[in-house]
Amino acid sequence: METLATSPLAEGAVSGPFTVPALHAAYAAGLSPEAVIDEALRRLDAADDDGIFLHVESRAALMAAVASLGPFDPAAKPLWGIPFAVKDNIDVGDRTTTAACPAYAYRAERDAFCVAALRAAGAILIGKTNLDQFATGLVGVRTPFPAPRNAVDPALAPGGSSSGSAVAVSRGIVAFALGTDTAGSGRVPAAYNNIVGLKPTLGAISSTGVVPACRSLDTVSVLALTVDDAYRAYRVAARPDPADAYSRNFATSPLSGPPPAFRIGIPDAASREFFGDADQERSFLDALRLVETLGGDLVEIDFAPFYETAQMLYEGPWVAERFVVLEEMLATQPEAVHPVTRAIIEKGRDMSAADLFRGIYRLKALERITASATASLDALCVPTVPTFYTVADIAADPVGTNARLGTYTNFVNLLDMCGIAVPTGPRADGRPGSITLLARADRDAAIAALAREIHALSAPTLGATGAPLPQAAALPFGPAEDEIELAVVGAHMSGMPLNGELTRLGARFLRAARTAPFYRLHALAGGPPFKPGLVRDGAGAAIDLETWAVPKRQFGAFMDGVKSPLGIGTLTLEGGEEVKGFLCEAAGLKGATEITAFGGWRSYMASVAARTA
Amino acid sequence: METLATSPLAEGAVSGPFTVPALHAAYAAGLSPEAVIDEALRRLDAADDDGIFLHVESRAALMAAVASLGPFDPAAKPLWGIPFAVKDNIDVGDRTTTAACPAYAYRAERDAFCVAALRAAGAILIGKTNLDQFATGLVGVRTPFPAPRNAVDPALAPGGSSSGSAVAVSRGIVAFALGTDTAGSGRVPAAYNNIVGLKPTLGAISSTGVVPACRSLDTVSVLALTVDDAYRAYRVAARPDPADAYSRNFATSPLSGPPPAFRIGIPDAASREFFGDADQERSFLDALRLVETLGGDLVEIDFAPFYETAQMLYEGPWVAERFVVLEEMLATQPEAVHPVTRAIIEKGRDMSAADLFRGIYRLKALERITASATASLDALCVPTVPTFYTVADIAADPVGTNARLGTYTNFVNLLDMCGIAVPTGPRADGRPGSITLLARADRDAAIAALAREIHALSAPTLGATGAPLPQAAALPFGPAEDEIELAVVGAHMSGMPLNGELTRLGARFLRAARTAPFYRLHALAGGPPFKPGLVRDGAGAAIDLETWAVPKRQFGAFMDGVKSPLGIGTLTLEGGEEVKGFLCEAAGLKGATEITAFGGWRSYMASVAARTA
Repeated sequence: METLATSPLAEGAVSGPFTVPALHAAYAAGLSPEAVIDEALRRLDAADDDGIFLHVESRAALMAAVASLGPFDPAAKPLWGIPFAVKDNIDVGDRTTTAACPAYAYRAERDAFCVAALRAAGAILIGKTNLDQFATGLVGVRTPFPAPRNAVDPALAPGGSSSGSAVAVSRGIVAFALGTDTAGSGRVPAAYNNIVGLKPTLGAISSTGVVPACRSLDTVSVLALTVDDAYRAYRVAARPDPADAYSRNFATSPLSGPPPAFRIGIPDAASREFFGDADQERSFLDALRLVETLGGDLVEIDFAPFYETAQMLYEGPWVAERFVVLEEMLATQPEAVHPVTRAIIEKGRDMSAADLFRGIYRLKALERITASATASLDALCVPTVPTFYTVADIAADPVGTNARLGTYTNFVNLLDMCGIAVPTGPRADGRPGSITLLARADRDAAIAALAREIHALSAPTLGATGAPLPQAAALPFGPAEDEIELAVVGAHMSGMPLNGELTRLGARFLRAARTAPFYRLHALAGGPPFKPGLVRDGAGAAIDLETWAVPKRQFGAFMDGVKSPLGIGTLTLEGGEEVKGFLCEAAGLKGATEITAFGGWRSYMASVAARTA
Repeated sequence: METLATSPLAEGAVSGPFTVPALHAAYAAGLSPEAVIDEALRRLDAADDDGIFLHVESRAALMAAVASLGPFDPAAKPLWGIPFAVKDNIDVGDRTTTAACPAYAYRAERDAFCVAALRAAGAILIGKTNLDQFATGLVGVRTPFPAPRNAVDPALAPGGSSSGSAVAVSRGIVAFALGTDTAGSGRVPAAYNNIVGLKPTLGAISSTGVVPACRSLDTVSVLALTVDDAYRAYRVAARPDPADAYSRNFATSPLSGPPPAFRIGIPDAASREFFGDADQERSFLDALRLVETLGGDLVEIDFAPFYETAQMLYEGPWVAERFVVLEEMLATQPEAVHPVTRAIIEKGRDMSAADLFRGIYRLKALERITASATASLDALCVPTVPTFYTVADIAADPVGTNARLGTYTNFVNLLDMCGIAVPTGPRADGRPGSITLLARADRDAAIAALAREIHALSAPTLGATGAPLPQAAALPFGPAEDEIELAVVGAHMSGMPLNGELTRLGARFLRAARTAPFYRLHALAGGPPFKPGLVRDGAGAAIDLETWAVPKRQFGAFMDGVKSPLGIGTLTLEGGEEVKGFLCEAAGLKGATEITAFGGWRSYMASVAARTA
């Protein structure tokens, strides 16, 4: 394996890993996207692995795509000039979709909904990647084509089913790649190839133009070298699609730093499973220390209900959902289906609707049980995979190894959770460490924000490139469309007595700031909790505040707790920006003490504490 | 049929229909609940119909239940002393549940969750009512016991499956009764017996202790003579149950008057179906005139997707859900099952899980299509039944008549809608008219409020009692737990330019009121829209306002539109009550004109209009 130079992409240079910030910095400095495409093709050639791609775009087609990009404009096209790949169960217009089954192959009329969105944002499709046939498998070798080689260690399985996408990213051929993930297909290969695997909430990315595995449980996923890149591509791809009945409309929040304190559920000792792999166990426990370093409180929970859920996917009636896709092919040309895949899916033929209803009832009960067990948690943290299998291990026991690989992934979509797998640095034996953060639907941004911090703390190299994780740029700032930025000036600030009223509702800290210089601050009569009253007044001063992003749907619940004489109005910040925030009725200042001179509630409270100490 | 005296229940008297207000007024005036129980038993006896109840409590047991009620306290026990019945697929502790199948019968250990709630609220269980076996049917005659006679016309089918419950209510034996409703079992018998049938949103009432029909689509329902009584019992019964995985947590809003304008979807002419029953068509069109009288805008929509959904219930894979319940019995003693029921349910044996997945996908698509067609509507209005069938009609064609009866009911639970069937007065031939209002999940209060007005306008008699609908008491007032009462003093009031910002978010008018006498009102500079600014000030006056109930989850969206210098704080009303409402920053009064003397924005704007006219 060729190690890529570790220097960031400099002007004119095309070395180092392809990340969006590095490529965009280089484009801004004059690098041509043609040079990047040629470097991608050179890396593909150097990988010397015919198993990665089932189709590669011609150089002429690639250059035509680049030529149509228009001038470099990352604001209008956030993925301008970024090379990417898609798993070959996702349609690309005028190209063949195989799902790794030549007999199933068809020419797609148009791009899948998500591919169209990525290309409209400037991403350049390099080709279509190999997979476990029909995305059924977590091993990456259930393909009639040559299987891709693991990018980190060719003896290891590549992991699947998004094997080619993971290897292409790990080798630095593309900046990101689309996979799909029903049982773990976007996470297991990420762990096996030392990269990030973002598995969105079901329905966040449209499935229009994607070959179903279990249609009700499938999602497109994103594989990338960094969390920022995975999340950037996710934000572009995740948009509601009226043509996909499973599409949901989520606001894709920008990332921000994780809260200073949070609660993370982990499998208790009795329900942790590594199948004897002590290195993997140690790697997981080391990663948990990183979570604690970031302020996470670890809470051990019993994973038995999660494991019971997981079993339904391959041992219960959901196998029949895969059978729906292949019924006709299994009837007319069964030999066209990979023998291991066929043996699994054929079991779905004999499952009855009554079996499925019983399964649905049990799943409903397990949803209730697991939701209750995790209600007070911000996320779960699990090993992405329990252990590593070599290509030889899998050949010896294709079904057993596959089942064990799904230990920490199979239950996730059945329980409507989102997840992100992130590298945590090499294990003692050099194999890549990886944990997965999981949370309830629509918490993709929250776990990505945390995964980003864990990734940075673990200081890994990127994929198989040998290059270190670059220091990430400052996080983009701002409330999402479904949030209100709320200025708080007193007891609701971080560490103050009423801060919990914000965090309990899922609000997140945005920034510290100051008002424009025309407010007066007063310490109101009464308390505890002691509260200030902010009043706009031409002759005032600038007052310290914090802003928090409050989910809009929670704002009413928050409002319930706002008591007279305080209310929520509009504050002008330094620089003239306006945000919603706490104000006090002038009539409510009776008995109050003006404390404008302190410049803010924190300074005033510190002076009170100093006086009374 | 004996006609009950039409006078309300007076002191000591036990005549007239049993409604909660009438009984509570009589209890307050000294009537004993023992007398009411005896009257219920007398009415049951007078009905001379062994088909209504499968079990009647002994007089001794009833008197013991009454004795344990404690003193009359309708605030603590909102159903104190109210006789009710439950369908015999719902458990009552220490009583047999038969589901109208003697071979299936079992002794229940405890009350169903909802029965326990009703009894805890003071309701007195009279007995358990007959049904279409296993709640499979809409006709009311698929029972091995004598079928109940229709209370309005003994030639007509009683309607089912909640036949006994509907007849018991219609005859005035009980004030309300529980049914269940999967395909229309709580609505069809209501229409056939001239009473109200409230079919809650799925999951609002727990199914713990209820024999499943289609477990994922079942709900307990309420049958009563008036909307108020049905809704009162519903509010008591609807509470979240951690033991029922299908239970959902809805706030059960109190009823209030419908908004002055609303949009009601109706089947377009091509998709209205009465199977040649011109009287039924005329009755429906007459009812639509009542809806228009109330301010409803009628919007014709294509019902084809609703009918396609409906077909899945008895002709598609959901039949297998009924088979789950009966699999063992059909294997061991098939002759114990009613032959018509058996023929229907046995079809579920051969349905595959793949069939069901295909059905689930199609349903998901139909959900999308119907949601889009109804997105701008407040509710749908349909005939409850397309026509009437006699007992003889049903004997001649037991499956065809049943299928046609479900025309306007079968799709409702599959689409997660709530519904309420309400009498609209006699048709030309004297048979009872009935329409059903339908709306999306958790809109039970909104459609009940509208049904109440329609019922009052149509001035019907109650059930088969011959008594007129009593004039209803003033509606109880107040926001629900999931609403915020918001005081508006200017452009957001009814008929003012910004009122749409409230109604678009689902806010509903609550009341006109005034502030306490210490506010000043100002006409702010700028506009249109012209806005007032309310400021608290010891020397001010009382100012007119309106309060609106804003759904809490929408409050954040509303807040987005609140612009400086206005904000939301706490207002004190006349009488000292505090509500959230619009206030103005004192600093924002620059250029404003004080208009406190007008007493409110409406008076001020009227004076402006008069001046400029």
